[in-house]
Amino acid sequence: MAGRKRDPRAQAAALAAAEELLTEVGYHSVTMEKIAERSGVAKMTLYRWWPNKAAIVTDAVRAKLAPTAVPDTGSLADDLHTQLEALLGTLTRYGDASVVAGAMSSRGEAGRADLRDILHPWLEGLVTILERHRSADFPAELTAQSWVGYVLYRVVFLQEEVSAHDLRTLVAPAL
Amino acid sequence: MAGRKRDPRAQAAALAAAEELLTEVGYHSVTMEKIAERSGVAKMTLYRWWPNKAAIVTDAVRAKLAPTAVPDTGSLADDLHTQLEALLGTLTRYGDASVVAGAMSSRGEAGRADLRDILHPWLEGLVTILERHRSADFPAELTAQSWVGYVLYRVVFLQEEVSAHDLRTLVAPAL
Repeated sequence: MAGRKRDPRAQAAALAAAEELLTEVGYHSVTMEKIAERSGVAKMTLYRWWPNKAAIVTDAVRAKLAPTAVPDTGSLADDLHTQLEALLGTLTRYGDASVVAGAMSSRGEAGRADLRDILHPWLEGLVTILERHRSADFPAELTAQSWVGYVLYRVVFLQEEVSAHDLRTLVAPAL
Repeated sequence: MAGRKRDPRAQAAALAAAEELLTEVGYHSVTMEKIAERSGVAKMTLYRWWPNKAAIVTDAVRAKLAPTAVPDTGSLADDLHTQLEALLGTLTRYGDASVVAGAMSSRGEAGRADLRDILHPWLEGLVTILERHRSADFPAELTAQSWVGYVLYRVVFLQEEVSAHDLRTLVAPAL
């Protein structure tokens, strides 16, 4: 396994190159070749560290797909809307063929686990907002799961755009 | 392409064998080898017709994953519950590692398209039920998408069980 040991500086350069390329040319046009060129890390080394492009791209952006602070303005409607807009922005951050869909499509169970991990803190944020405003017997988790599921279904499976109006309609029954 | 032409009788035998094995041993234990043995179709022939086990298994069960008649008992609550229970039964029909999750996990974009196609008639059924009982300005499609999304998220991504109580809680705001 000595050959798999990662040089932290080269690894950081490869991840930075992967994210830059993603932003510049979009997921489908990123290649291991281009990451190697830009980072100065040999392609063979990249393949020792990551099995494929989806894996390195997912690693490169994982931290950027996490939610920041949970909104807390005092308005349930505004907080939910802000959080759901931010989730939507995250899922489509790197263009139409979102990282998330790309990672899932090409990586099977590993991609699915990635998506599950990416979504989890978003779900928790929604639950936190709901629980601030609703009684203990309100089904906050189930409600939040149906919203995350809605976004997942439309954006990742149907590859449709979700509008601000859709989000407002979605959360209306909980207000 | 002559080599890819399918003999309908051999094809039917292979599909029947795939479904039998799925029921008997579960998705993870089905192999192209076993399908070849049971159906009497050579493994090399199977691979000419289907790229992998997930493709043949999905083809074998596709028709069984479609909804039958949309329930119409006169009770909105009962009809929704029946339809959602049936969807859940479909997604988990062949055991824990459902066909749906298996197909999606191992087949990338092709699996995702399969899942989208499998879910679409279920979504339409829910919309039909909702529109029978609700006014024209009720967001039937969005509501149904959030329910399908919830089931998808929990069953396929989180690999959790969804209870009858969960389903009743899910649809309660629409009643």
